[in-house]
Amino acid sequence: MKLNCDLGESYGSWKMGLDSEAMSHIDQANIACGFHAGDPQWMIKTLLLAKQHNVEIGAHPGYPDLVGFGRRSMKCSAEEVQSLVQYQMSALDGMARCQGLEMTYIKPHGALYNDMMADAFVRENIMKAVANYYRPVRLVLQATPSSAQHKEEAEKFGLEVAFEAFADRCYDDDGRLLARSKAGAVHTKEKMLAQVKQLMEQGTVTTVSGIELALQVDTLCVHGDNEEGVRSIEAIKVMVAGQ
Amino acid sequence: MKLNCDLGESYGSWKMGLDSEAMSHIDQANIACGFHAGDPQWMIKTLLLAKQHNVEIGAHPGYPDLVGFGRRSMKCSAEEVQSLVQYQMSALDGMARCQGLEMTYIKPHGALYNDMMADAFVRENIMKAVANYYRPVRLVLQATPSSAQHKEEAEKFGLEVAFEAFADRCYDDDGRLLARSKAGAVHTKEKMLAQVKQLMEQGTVTTVSGIELALQVDTLCVHGDNEEGVRSIEAIKVMVAGQ
Amino acid sequence: MKLNCDLGESYGSWKMGLDSEAMSHIDQANIACGFHAGDPQWMIKTLLLAKQHNVEIGAHPGYPDLVGFGRRSMKCSAEEVQSLVQYQMSALDGMARCQGLEMTYIKPHGALYNDMMADAFVRENIMKAVANYYRPVRLVLQATPSSAQHKEEAEKFGLEVAFEAFADRCYDDDGRLLARSKAGAVHTKEKMLAQVKQLMEQGTVTTVSGIELALQVDTLCVHGDNEEGVRSIEAIKVMVAGQ
Amino acid sequence: MKLNCDLGESYGSWKMGLDSEAMSHIDQANIACGFHAGDPQWMIKTLLLAKQHNVEIGAHPGYPDLVGFGRRSMKCSAEEVQSLVQYQMSALDGMARCQGLEMTYIKPHGALYNDMMADAFVRENIMKAVANYYRPVRLVLQATPSSAQHKEEAEKFGLEVAFEAFADRCYDDDGRLLARSKAGAVHTKEKMLAQVKQLMEQGTVTTVSGIELALQVDTLCVHGDNEEGVRSIEAIKVMVAGQ
Repeated sequence: MKLNCDLGESYGSWKMGLDSEAMSHIDQANIACGFHAGDPQWMIKTLLLAKQHNVEIGAHPGYPDLVGFGRRSMKCSAEEVQSLVQYQMSALDGMARCQGLEMTYIKPHGALYNDMMADAFVRENIMKAVANYYRPVRLVLQATPSSAQHKEEAEKFGLEVAFEAFADRCYDDDGRLLARSKAGAVHTKEKMLAQVKQLMEQGTVTTVSGIELALQVDTLCVHGDNEEGVRSIEAIKVMVAGQ
Repeated sequence: MKLNCDLGESYGSWKMGLDSEAMSHIDQANIACGFHAGDPQWMIKTLLLAKQHNVEIGAHPGYPDLVGFGRRSMKCSAEEVQSLVQYQMSALDGMARCQGLEMTYIKPHGALYNDMMADAFVRENIMKAVANYYRPVRLVLQATPSSAQHKEEAEKFGLEVAFEAFADRCYDDDGRLLARSKAGAVHTKEKMLAQVKQLMEQGTVTTVSGIELALQVDTLCVHGDNEEGVRSIEAIKVMVAGQ
Repeated sequence: MKLNCDLGESYGSWKMGLDSEAMSHIDQANIACGFHAGDPQWMIKTLLLAKQHNVEIGAHPGYPDLVGFGRRSMKCSAEEVQSLVQYQMSALDGMARCQGLEMTYIKPHGALYNDMMADAFVRENIMKAVANYYRPVRLVLQATPSSAQHKEEAEKFGLEVAFEAFADRCYDDDGRLLARSKAGAVHTKEKMLAQVKQLMEQGTVTTVSGIELALQVDTLCVHGDNEEGVRSIEAIKVMVAGQ
Repeated sequence: MKLNCDLGESYGSWKMGLDSEAMSHIDQANIACGFHAGDPQWMIKTLLLAKQHNVEIGAHPGYPDLVGFGRRSMKCSAEEVQSLVQYQMSALDGMARCQGLEMTYIKPHGALYNDMMADAFVRENIMKAVANYYRPVRLVLQATPSSAQHKEEAEKFGLEVAFEAFADRCYDDDGRLLARSKAGAVHTKEKMLAQVKQLMEQGTVTTVSGIELALQVDTLCVHGDNEEGVRSIEAIKVMVAGQ
């Protein structure tokens, strides 16, 4: 099981996230591409940091909504979704190659990610954008009970997919993340580590109502926003490495 | 002698330029990359138009100044110049490849172009950005009496360059374009065609004060902003083809 | 019955709409405020044009989505809706006062307008934003069978409202505009003038299925995007003036 | 002597500055208006914070350069300078009034401030913009040996001005701030307090070469970027209050 983390989310003079600290513990860096966060200079800095720590590189494209940090769903046409995804992938990909690196996957950000999971139209157009990229790149989706169906959808486009789970979030019985507004939505560190352990050993999570839900997980999403987050990454890394 | 033209300068709902009309007469399309003009959807449309007409593709990066159309000089650091150039090249390059096309050159836009010609610091950093791109791409500069020196500068970085002249603009004795505010700065159609003929046959332009100035020219910059511009392109194309 | 028109929708080097032509025939100019269209310079030019033609001035705020021209619905929080409306009203209001003019109303643009009509949450927050503006300003909504309810909602906030109808659009039986994708959605000039006449004389529109629908209308929305639009405005103006 | 501080420089999800901590010690808040920093929501939050602490409110307009934080000089036309200043003043002013507050002054930000001090063209157009605002608002410039001349320039436009000094920066013999790249450009806390004392008691600063330079100062610029900055503000406040 790999660890992936959203990085490169600083913008101009505004710093966000403990990228240096987080980068040394993770396997995959989801790098913002300038639409909801990130800018050309921060992208290069983040790529160099990934290179230094030998971390796999993925594009983390979002809606063109800087002030909203890509967290507001935007009603986009098929052409809009496809072109904004390909633009951001291309920008990161070329800059990565300039540093001798290779972008291997794409994981949408924020509202674009949520819309991909909830809305077949958005998902289809993201899949098309990635499948029609000029060389093979994996698409990362959330691991849910629908993962098999999502894999089938992708295969129609000749697209390879990977699935991620969340270490620190409580799942509802449908395999969605419990809304942050609900009690218990974000796990304590202890519960988080228990969830990771269960995922690794049994391939399941225990939902909010106590049901065991099977999830096929390739990578775990972790967060390096602050010092507590980085310490959680370290703890998860120890557990995963000891597997 | 090739003809190059700035295209893909529409943005969202705002249309600019007669791209369809111009594309059928030119050899090289300088395509805006989203910072001063252009957006992901217009970039794809412009790439498809270039493909249809078998036109060579170049990136046309500008300062990040949409409202100013990249025409206002911005005092940028070395890192800022290099990263904004590489980002825009990368974005266009990847999207071109998704359409089975290849970006072969880069020509800066507006104030970035002017600063490249007038300011050694900006020129050096643009050259570095293009030279350090992950595969060889030519840089287009203005043909001036300093072209030999600019070529030498580029060779230090292992960078291939090309030089362009302007069909419709009067030159001053230093080989710069006469400021648009000056009388006679923009040629009549007749004078424009005479200037092109002289460039092709003798490799010179006659400056505002009557001096013959030798310019080594690989490509001619033409304009497709309006119907008159397109008719001028057609006339130049006929002349160049008949050579 | 007044005529209102969206104006000031140019942005930087991109021109949109025949503002000079349209301004001379209308009563109320809905001026874009820089978020989906318009910029400080175009706002001043549009204000001066309105002053010259003695046209009433309204703010035309939109979602912060320049590339999408404010036509994509964005899922915003209460604070986001309220603050983006007040910011745009404030910007136009101050600039109008600098020209000796007064902004008297606000009419949301594009997706913000549609969301206001379709979503009570968005409508409530737009109403709050306008009602809490530091001086009284009217809010313009679409005239529908729900207008009485909307007026009541506004009165709770101490807010004055006005209602507009569309001259050139066919209505469905619920009083909504027939989707542009449907046949007959946009009237011919003849049908448009008939609809205006009926609105003025009987206060009704005939819907797509032939039902007569009563609408309380204070102002008619007309379009100055192109020459045909301007000619339609002239024809409507003649009819309204002859009343 | 008053204390002024740049505040409201957060943007969307990116926080900048210890506004709550700084606000309780200062007299005047220079609030970013959305072009180089700040957004509608942060502007309202900052206005409410100023209201709570009874702090005077000024607009802090910058060049339209979010990624560069308004720190890059942009070559603007007269109309561009005037309209971008009036737009930003208007936006803050209206939003302040919605909170029962009044904007009383304007102090340009970053490169716009530096250009105002160094370039008569930019200064003239900023002065025109503020002088033509629909009600009287003061313009804050840097106190230099040219302050008397700047005051005269402003009086031609009927514009009231105020002058600010920097507590923590070393001055060169021409009354400019020593470039940050030079040794001793930023004072230690001890030197900073000595400079404030000297300004209050003798109306002078001692320049880098030891010359005493007379400066007419109305307000001191202090910085609340981090905890050390806030502690310096507190120390200066104690000294000023004890005067």
